[in-house]
Amino acid sequence: MTNRQIVITSLPEGALTPDHYELRETEMPVPADGEALLRVILMSIDAANRAWLQGATYRAAVKAGDAMPTYAICEVVSSNSPRLAPGDIVAAEATWSDYITAAAHKVQKLPHVSPLSNLLSVYGIAGKTAFHGLIGVGNAMAGETVLVSAAAGSVGGYVGQIAKALGCRVVGIAGGPEKCKWVVDELGFDACVDYRAPSLFKQLRAACPDGVDVYFDNVGGTVLETALATMNERGRIVCCGAISQYDTSAPTGPRNLPGLVVTKRLRMEGFIVMDFAHNDAKATRALQQWVASGQIKVFEDVVDGLENAPAALIGLLAGDNKGKRMVRVSPDPVRN
Amino acid sequence: MTNRQIVITSLPEGALTPDHYELRETEMPVPADGEALLRVILMSIDAANRAWLQGATYRAAVKAGDAMPTYAICEVVSSNSPRLAPGDIVAAEATWSDYITAAAHKVQKLPHVSPLSNLLSVYGIAGKTAFHGLIGVGNAMAGETVLVSAAAGSVGGYVGQIAKALGCRVVGIAGGPEKCKWVVDELGFDACVDYRAPSLFKQLRAACPDGVDVYFDNVGGTVLETALATMNERGRIVCCGAISQYDTSAPTGPRNLPGLVVTKRLRMEGFIVMDFAHNDAKATRALQQWVASGQIKVFEDVVDGLENAPAALIGLLAGDNKGKRMVRVSPDPVRN
Repeated sequence: MTNRQIVITSLPEGALTPDHYELRETEMPVPADGEALLRVILMSIDAANRAWLQGATYRAAVKAGDAMPTYAICEVVSSNSPRLAPGDIVAAEATWSDYITAAAHKVQKLPHVSPLSNLLSVYGIAGKTAFHGLIGVGNAMAGETVLVSAAAGSVGGYVGQIAKALGCRVVGIAGGPEKCKWVVDELGFDACVDYRAPSLFKQLRAACPDGVDVYFDNVGGTVLETALATMNERGRIVCCGAISQYDTSAPTGPRNLPGLVVTKRLRMEGFIVMDFAHNDAKATRALQQWVASGQIKVFEDVVDGLENAPAALIGLLAGDNKGKRMVRVSPDPVRN
Repeated sequence: MTNRQIVITSLPEGALTPDHYELRETEMPVPADGEALLRVILMSIDAANRAWLQGATYRAAVKAGDAMPTYAICEVVSSNSPRLAPGDIVAAEATWSDYITAAAHKVQKLPHVSPLSNLLSVYGIAGKTAFHGLIGVGNAMAGETVLVSAAAGSVGGYVGQIAKALGCRVVGIAGGPEKCKWVVDELGFDACVDYRAPSLFKQLRAACPDGVDVYFDNVGGTVLETALATMNERGRIVCCGAISQYDTSAPTGPRNLPGLVVTKRLRMEGFIVMDFAHNDAKATRALQQWVASGQIKVFEDVVDGLENAPAALIGLLAGDNKGKRMVRVSPDPVRN
């Protein structure tokens, strides 16, 4: 029995391309003592994957020759640890592979939700990142205006829907008229402006007549620079990601910073979803309530096949996904 | 009896020069009902004065033809309000003038401290800005490393001395070896690096072997960009000013932002000293205690003569002051 694995053969200098990856057949991994053999079911495809290739972040840098790392939902095939039994569903720091081994104490057991994809979208990284960022970092309150970039993306869509459920006015930023329409019609945002169209600042001023109290930034760069100019005094900028800055070797910075941070008394704060793990149960309970009430709709963007993972990531960086993108490597297990 | 007033005749496009100002003889102002006639004693010279010329900040923009605004310590000459009596010492939003009138309810009565200059330095805007920014915004704690730019400036010098009193390791950034030596020898910083010398990043790494927990930013621009790279996880950046960005029409931004804000979970927060007025009494008590114990030394940079105010501000922007700069317009009143 063989395994398949996708390796990053060289690190990108400029834009990431399929040539940076290679699919290799490898031997089936054998779990050591305390480890389990895991079948990869779904792999999370995130803009942060690209940032990992730029150097050390909140995790060690990825090196040429490494199997591409990913966060994945897996099923336990066999286990050399009393912590895990065959059939258990776990979240693991995995690689782009059919099978991996992992130390049992480093994986997280998950409930048998159906479909499992919800554990990567609304009840997974995407939904929790949106919840913790908007509430724990941004302190969004009813009556305030919340602006969200990458509004059609995995996190942005939940940020806006949660903000609506809280009673905020919600304005999105997305690329192209079709996506903007989808954000308003399907996700229920009050407005969505197209950052590819002219005069982003004028569009934002029109869409946010009372200014912006919370800006949830997934993109950085010139969109952040423009959003800064729309902030109200004592506004909060939730720094979640900077997708505009990952796929390049020439990053740009907001030229009006820190000037506006001082004069408007803004707070910019970065976070990682794991920082708020102590509040995950609270987030899950709230998200379940909003899904049950219909205030949150779940949109998933599932790409089939391990071999399509590089294209799925490259496409995400170009903004071609709507909702949480993931790659299905193998089917959900059938439950009785 | 005539008055003198300095008017800004045109707004600078690039660097501010003496040609942007004109000293005019005007009539003695006459206080209306509810107003007082004030003799200007000391005018505060601050980098923020230059920012006011760039457009609206936390106050309305200054326009060509306006008398140059300033924060000043004044003595009441005559009063048409029961709130004020001749001889009272007040702080006022004034202009570069010998005499002004002001609404009595808009000025703040001050104690008869000797010398009055202390009300602009350690017990005034400079000391309070340092105290509130470092403690209220930065949450600096014993054992942490505090980095301060414009360390020889009015606010930076107090930030460092307060941080030392709190038990922090304190590193300054200043322009030129002579200033850096002064910051270490006279203000008692643990180290001070010269931003005009090569390799600011390497200098900072050597001076801050445990990284930076709080960066008190008075300058913005490339110094901020470099300081960001030295921050520890969960570090705080206190945004107090951006002197590098005021005297130009081509501001630059930190290119590594928001990337590092996300991955290091940094918090950047802007503030204005007035935001913390509710804690001013606490700040004054603490500053008095540190002055009494010798932990804070007071350095003032007093320029004599109203007519020298433009040169005093232009020189401040070029970094030629050590300690709090002010212009003396008239002598402290003699007290019995």
